[in-house]
Amino acid sequence: MKAVVYRGTRDLRVEERDPEAPGRGQVRIEVAYTGICGTDLHIYHGDMDTRVGASAIIGHEMSGRIAALGEDATGLTVGQAVTVMPTRPCGRCAACRRGLSHICHAMNFLGIDSPGAMQSSWTVPTDLVLPLPEDLPLDHAALVEPVAVAVHDVRRGDVTADDQVVVVGGGPVGVLIATVARGRGARVLLVEPDPFRRDVAGRIGVEAVDPTTTDVVALVDDRTDGAGADVAFEVSGSAGGVATAVDVLTTRGRLVMVAIHPRPREINLHRFFWRELELLGARLYQRDDMVEAIRLVASGAIPARQLISRVEPVEAADAAFAALEGGGVMKVLLDLSEGNR
Amino acid sequence: MKAVVYRGTRDLRVEERDPEAPGRGQVRIEVAYTGICGTDLHIYHGDMDTRVGASAIIGHEMSGRIAALGEDATGLTVGQAVTVMPTRPCGRCAACRRGLSHICHAMNFLGIDSPGAMQSSWTVPTDLVLPLPEDLPLDHAALVEPVAVAVHDVRRGDVTADDQVVVVGGGPVGVLIATVARGRGARVLLVEPDPFRRDVAGRIGVEAVDPTTTDVVALVDDRTDGAGADVAFEVSGSAGGVATAVDVLTTRGRLVMVAIHPRPREINLHRFFWRELELLGARLYQRDDMVEAIRLVASGAIPARQLISRVEPVEAADAAFAALEGGGVMKVLLDLSEGNR
Repeated sequence: MKAVVYRGTRDLRVEERDPEAPGRGQVRIEVAYTGICGTDLHIYHGDMDTRVGASAIIGHEMSGRIAALGEDATGLTVGQAVTVMPTRPCGRCAACRRGLSHICHAMNFLGIDSPGAMQSSWTVPTDLVLPLPEDLPLDHAALVEPVAVAVHDVRRGDVTADDQVVVVGGGPVGVLIATVARGRGARVLLVEPDPFRRDVAGRIGVEAVDPTTTDVVALVDDRTDGAGADVAFEVSGSAGGVATAVDVLTTRGRLVMVAIHPRPREINLHRFFWRELELLGARLYQRDDMVEAIRLVASGAIPARQLISRVEPVEAADAAFAALEGGGVMKVLLDLSEGNR
Repeated sequence: MKAVVYRGTRDLRVEERDPEAPGRGQVRIEVAYTGICGTDLHIYHGDMDTRVGASAIIGHEMSGRIAALGEDATGLTVGQAVTVMPTRPCGRCAACRRGLSHICHAMNFLGIDSPGAMQSSWTVPTDLVLPLPEDLPLDHAALVEPVAVAVHDVRRGDVTADDQVVVVGGGPVGVLIATVARGRGARVLLVEPDPFRRDVAGRIGVEAVDPTTTDVVALVDDRTDGAGADVAFEVSGSAGGVATAVDVLTTRGRLVMVAIHPRPREINLHRFFWRELELLGARLYQRDDMVEAIRLVASGAIPARQLISRVEPVEAADAAFAALEGGGVMKVLLDLSEGNR
């Protein structure tokens, strides 16, 4: 079977490996599609070498079918369509002890800390496997994991009907947050400088504006009778994005910090005081978020077809990563199924 | 009657004025005591001239007795002990329309935007007046307003029994927050570099540590089995205080931003992401907070006697302000009652 192996900065190789037989409590999955995430790009750029190491199989957004069951792998059947929740909490740290294992301090994240989904045959513990509806196309199902991120973020923001929501950053996660928030009945404005991304958003009915030519704060004030937005999502990772997300908020507005900011950012704390704003960190997702994400993708609430820009064969992994760097694409999937034939 | 008038930077004058007869819906109060707040110090330093203007009577932490009732001033009697909630929201802005009039965008704050409590005779609208229990000493009652700030902050932090709480900054508001949080059953650690303030805290049973000699994060981790604090209050106004308040928190820990930071501060957003932390702005108080503050001061839950370092006659206002600048005091009150005799 084929595997996409990270060998070092900008050095991805498609290698032939032997499938791993499932042990007790494990299943082997024939992977259909694996999406490329921003985190995979960070790995590709060499930014996560301390966690990933050399010779790692990356990837964590996937769909596939059960190929073999290990001993005690109950509740699943061979041929069943599934996805995987790629997080294995330690069960012992302070977060796990508080019932917040999704933000485990010592998380084993499949595709970062242990072998991931960019392999035609992936052997994982059964408790990470989630069944998919049989009528859900497997390419669409590869979006379930990033949709779970969006579901979790929208939950953190406590978005309700008629809320004015501003999403700062229109990459895949930003667009998915906008879609999930809209599904809750919110009025959503996406802020994104890239015209291609704004165009994708527009085609799925999400209004997107260019912050380099639009005064976003004035626009939101105008639409809310001067009040400001109820919830903002910072998904851009930029200093300007943080400032916009703070400045658009109404009194007691909620800012969900989705993007990873490796270095400290300046925050206008006076505005937090004056308007009693709230900043909420958001990380990953809980099992309920994955279940909800499956429901949303299967129901068509997530416009999967319009969000998948390209599907490349596994052999073209390098070209697929390069395409993501070049822009002009939203979600790119690798087709792993060939390795199973 | 006597009034403390701000004439410009470091220029406070005690002037003789005529009492103002109460109009419709107003009462005239003979002021007993007025506390000096950090905000009054900011005014004294000339930092709030755009709001205060010259020739302003400042002060907003007070106690007194009703001296005269205007027309339609119902529900109050002459001689009754009272305090005043010194906030007049506009009733029209976005905050007021959302039912959050305590953080009105156009707040008329008595003692900043209109004449305050550092006058022997103060005429105010009846709807701002709160009755005091007759057995509550009026010097203690002058603490009600800052206690309401602490009650509001502790509510914003949702402090519950057995929470580990860290209060960064041990001035009057910090010490009051520590006291109110302890009253809710929390374990409280105060962080304060000034030995006098730590000593005051110690005498009222609040454990205080010096951040210049104690590794606060390690200490909190040690006390919480590595988890961290449930709630932190940033009351220091310093960059180091913000960093400490972020670093001590456990997963989903809540940081209440009490201090006013006029300039943006760097925040470790990566930690907000990794631990799903929450930052909550807090401003002023609501009427319920004032009512609760009266109850706490009257019940003795607030150790008012130990927190009042000095009581100065109104004529010594200038010296009282200088004393606050010099340190070695916690709360300083002005005795306005002489002006009524």
